[in-house]
Amino acid sequence: MKILLCEVNISEGKNLKTIEKVKKVIEKSLKINIIDIDSDKNHNRTVYTYIGEPQEILEVTKRLADKAIELIDMSKHHGSHPRIGAVDVVPFIPVKGIETEEAIEIAREFGKYIGSKGIPVYYYEDAATCPKRKSLVEIRRGQYEGLEEKLKDPEWIPDEGPTEFVPKTGVVVAGVRFPLVAFNVNLRTDDLGIANNIVRSVRHINGGYRFVRAIGLNLTDKNMVQVSMNLTNYTKTPIHRVMETVRSEASRYGISIAGAELVGPVPMKAVEEIVKFYLQVHNFSITQIIENNLLDLLDRD
Amino acid sequence: MKILLCEVNISEGKNLKTIEKVKKVIEKSLKINIIDIDSDKNHNRTVYTYIGEPQEILEVTKRLADKAIELIDMSKHHGSHPRIGAVDVVPFIPVKGIETEEAIEIAREFGKYIGSKGIPVYYYEDAATCPKRKSLVEIRRGQYEGLEEKLKDPEWIPDEGPTEFVPKTGVVVAGVRFPLVAFNVNLRTDDLGIANNIVRSVRHINGGYRFVRAIGLNLTDKNMVQVSMNLTNYTKTPIHRVMETVRSEASRYGISIAGAELVGPVPMKAVEEIVKFYLQVHNFSITQIIENNLLDLLDRD
Repeated sequence: MKILLCEVNISEGKNLKTIEKVKKVIEKSLKINIIDIDSDKNHNRTVYTYIGEPQEILEVTKRLADKAIELIDMSKHHGSHPRIGAVDVVPFIPVKGIETEEAIEIAREFGKYIGSKGIPVYYYEDAATCPKRKSLVEIRRGQYEGLEEKLKDPEWIPDEGPTEFVPKTGVVVAGVRFPLVAFNVNLRTDDLGIANNIVRSVRHINGGYRFVRAIGLNLTDKNMVQVSMNLTNYTKTPIHRVMETVRSEASRYGISIAGAELVGPVPMKAVEEIVKFYLQVHNFSITQIIENNLLDLLDRD
Repeated sequence: MKILLCEVNISEGKNLKTIEKVKKVIEKSLKINIIDIDSDKNHNRTVYTYIGEPQEILEVTKRLADKAIELIDMSKHHGSHPRIGAVDVVPFIPVKGIETEEAIEIAREFGKYIGSKGIPVYYYEDAATCPKRKSLVEIRRGQYEGLEEKLKDPEWIPDEGPTEFVPKTGVVVAGVRFPLVAFNVNLRTDDLGIANNIVRSVRHINGGYRFVRAIGLNLTDKNMVQVSMNLTNYTKTPIHRVMETVRSEASRYGISIAGAELVGPVPMKAVEEIVKFYLQVHNFSITQIIENNLLDLLDRD
């Protein structure tokens, strides 16, 4: 059985009616499993995460995009998170029995569909058509407000759909990427400077770990600060190593860790590595986890 | 879908032909999944671990027992592990969608079948018919060599089958129990006294954790000693707590942990607790693990 995960980010995190209507569209499919729906009012953004067989994921994602495009007007959108379209970014993530190449085909089929509806599309990460477009940050630079100008630049001709700016929808960014782990560590201090120092010690651009993106945040309701991270390749920069570096860097200020969060989906392999490191069980394998054998049992027919 | 796990312990760990013939019997079923087959020459004992739907597990276990009873002659058995029969102990362990009561029915059906073949049976743990028989240690006290006398004691009339001693097979002990976690910690020393001191600090009978059974072992090939443990209820005595106590007690002798082993099947919930403790992710749930959602997806039909 082939399993693909999709994490659609739409530019609506406040209007519960819209969020619910989009949810209803994907709930209609009995062949996918919704893992998580996460709305953020400040970001004004919702992430729908679901898994299933590739063709079903493609169909469900088309219907989701249709509904979000119908309901969201980007010309009126405000939010603290960078964004460039109503259906801002659509990553397809291989989970089981599916290679990157096949996932790219799905992403491209999705992109062609969106293009055929008169909306410009960029492909990113593993589905990118040139090196510059690999980076979502590059594609989104200038954001929605700068998109009209960007589309006039010959370097930024869309991969699918019209070359003209569509004010209501902006652009859709679709692609294939490795599963990302969202990991936040809360510190027993309200000193944002300390969080930012730790951020600089772990994140790639400042000399930290290659696959860490990070920012420092105030958690005003908790009187704490947070080191908020995305680990973009947990096999090469594992969670435990980042955790222990944050702990070690925090301790130089006499600050301890109040708690941490793994936000959204986490791959089983990332869990294996955590168990191996902390329990020192060098030969532990996730195949020993009883429930993982259930999967083989069910997948047999 | 209801899933039951079975861990049959047979009294043969040397004769590869016998071990293989018994394996072939359970391999015939395409509806079960063999998780582990673990033979130990010193113990002269093999453990077959497999999962599947309850009725299929019952049928496969009957056939396994028939074959082991046919091939093993207890009157010639020697081994370092306590044992009382050719099919020494047969625990049925509820994994998913099945209550203890239903598992007990399966264990009793299995016991009646063995009894009908002319072999005495004791039920233990959750399937026990009186408090004294809950404990496998009590049932096995005196071992195979003392069984003939034990069967004459009115307190030890078998739950199924004849009351007479059957020299070739001994007795079968069948029951239902909570999943057990086998956890061994290797120490950077060859001083067995230190391992035994640590054993006494963690195991129940010496004042340690309620659900820990432990012994100290020499690992002569590695020049190390081992704290070898069974955690009989990982929800109430979690793995991480035992690990950290072993670490703390070892450190008083200046000894560090060389590594550890989780032997055989481990429940997903035990893994959740490890991740929560070491990463301090207080709200982490195994439902966030992507692959656990695959199970729901496959189990839907």
